[in-house]
Amino acid sequence: MVIDSSPAYPAGPRTTPTRLAERARYDRAAVHAILDADYVCHLGFVADGAPVVLPTMYARVGERLYMHGSTGSRPLHAARECLRVCVTVTLTDGVVLARSAFHHSLNYRSVVAHGIAHRVVAEEERRMALDALVNAPFPGRADDCRPPTPKELAKTAVIRLDLTDVSAKVRTGGVVDEPEDMDLPYWAGVVPTARGYSPPVPDEQGSGPTAVPDYVRQAL
Amino acid sequence: MVIDSSPAYPAGPRTTPTRLAERARYDRAAVHAILDADYVCHLGFVADGAPVVLPTMYARVGERLYMHGSTGSRPLHAARECLRVCVTVTLTDGVVLARSAFHHSLNYRSVVAHGIAHRVVAEEERRMALDALVNAPFPGRADDCRPPTPKELAKTAVIRLDLTDVSAKVRTGGVVDEPEDMDLPYWAGVVPTARGYSPPVPDEQGSGPTAVPDYVRQAL
Repeated sequence: MVIDSSPAYPAGPRTTPTRLAERARYDRAAVHAILDADYVCHLGFVADGAPVVLPTMYARVGERLYMHGSTGSRPLHAARECLRVCVTVTLTDGVVLARSAFHHSLNYRSVVAHGIAHRVVAEEERRMALDALVNAPFPGRADDCRPPTPKELAKTAVIRLDLTDVSAKVRTGGVVDEPEDMDLPYWAGVVPTARGYSPPVPDEQGSGPTAVPDYVRQAL
Repeated sequence: MVIDSSPAYPAGPRTTPTRLAERARYDRAAVHAILDADYVCHLGFVADGAPVVLPTMYARVGERLYMHGSTGSRPLHAARECLRVCVTVTLTDGVVLARSAFHHSLNYRSVVAHGIAHRVVAEEERRMALDALVNAPFPGRADDCRPPTPKELAKTAVIRLDLTDVSAKVRTGGVVDEPEDMDLPYWAGVVPTARGYSPPVPDEQGSGPTAVPDYVRQAL
């Protein structure tokens, strides 16, 4: 197997935008940074000729994305052989209020990855992927919970998508308006969106520890 | 045309979950509330036999979803006739940290709408939809900016998806763990996610008003 370790993904027919090409990014560092900033993707596949888009959790490990679910779920069942997918991750960064309706926009960072997803069968890779999925929101959690039993593992399907046909799209910065609109009597600016967490709500049952773990507190 | 005004969407083959059926919602009020809480959806369609999922803004008006973009963009160009789509909106509400890796979960609300999207050609409906899209993040904004010129309107495509084949899925509440795991020495609880805005950043150019409008301040 040839490992492509060039700093950028190749631009292919699926990843070359038809417009606003200046927003496209192919460098691995930019793509990885976006993927690592979230843990919910939108998984697209085709069922009976029609598109289906479902939200699901993911984790990136090197040049691979992992997703998981019940062995009974539709896409994971279909991916027993292989499943053509499009995985999209989007972070909203701000609403751009221009003086003109036409130039209203959104600051965002998104990654779109195309390819064939495969079910992971090797037990070691499955366990590693499931750890990565538990760690995705709060790195460190996988070592601080009960690992899956063989029965639980048997109920869980893991699919993998190799990052080869992938690109990012980024809109950043301020308001762009027509020169003749600059003095119109409308407020213009960017309203940044904020993502974060509220204080954790401990489960009151059981006799386990009540102090919120450090790896959660650090992410708040 | 028969207007279906029953309080629930019908459960069809595409909207009946294969598992976790207790999380499915079909009542219009629940679906509308989720759709009205966000303005970025993931639009799925099929291009050359493969799924494509792109983030885009949307607005709900009654039983219709509107999306827009450049007439040159791929899905909007394809939708000149009609385009089979799946539109998915997902709100993440919290990360559920169970004592067992297997029972880790996510609190979320999502809506999945299937159907055929059509390009809107009637000028009145196009303008109404574009106003709704500008208003989606900050209701009131469409009346406080320069309306589109005929030239700008000509560059903008609007597509519509009627809400007929649609359902919501909701996971809410606390940790679910196996009875025998309740006293394991691992912290368990829910970490709620928080969505909001940071202070607006006014555009320094031009001579327009500098005070942040009320309809923006109210949403912060």
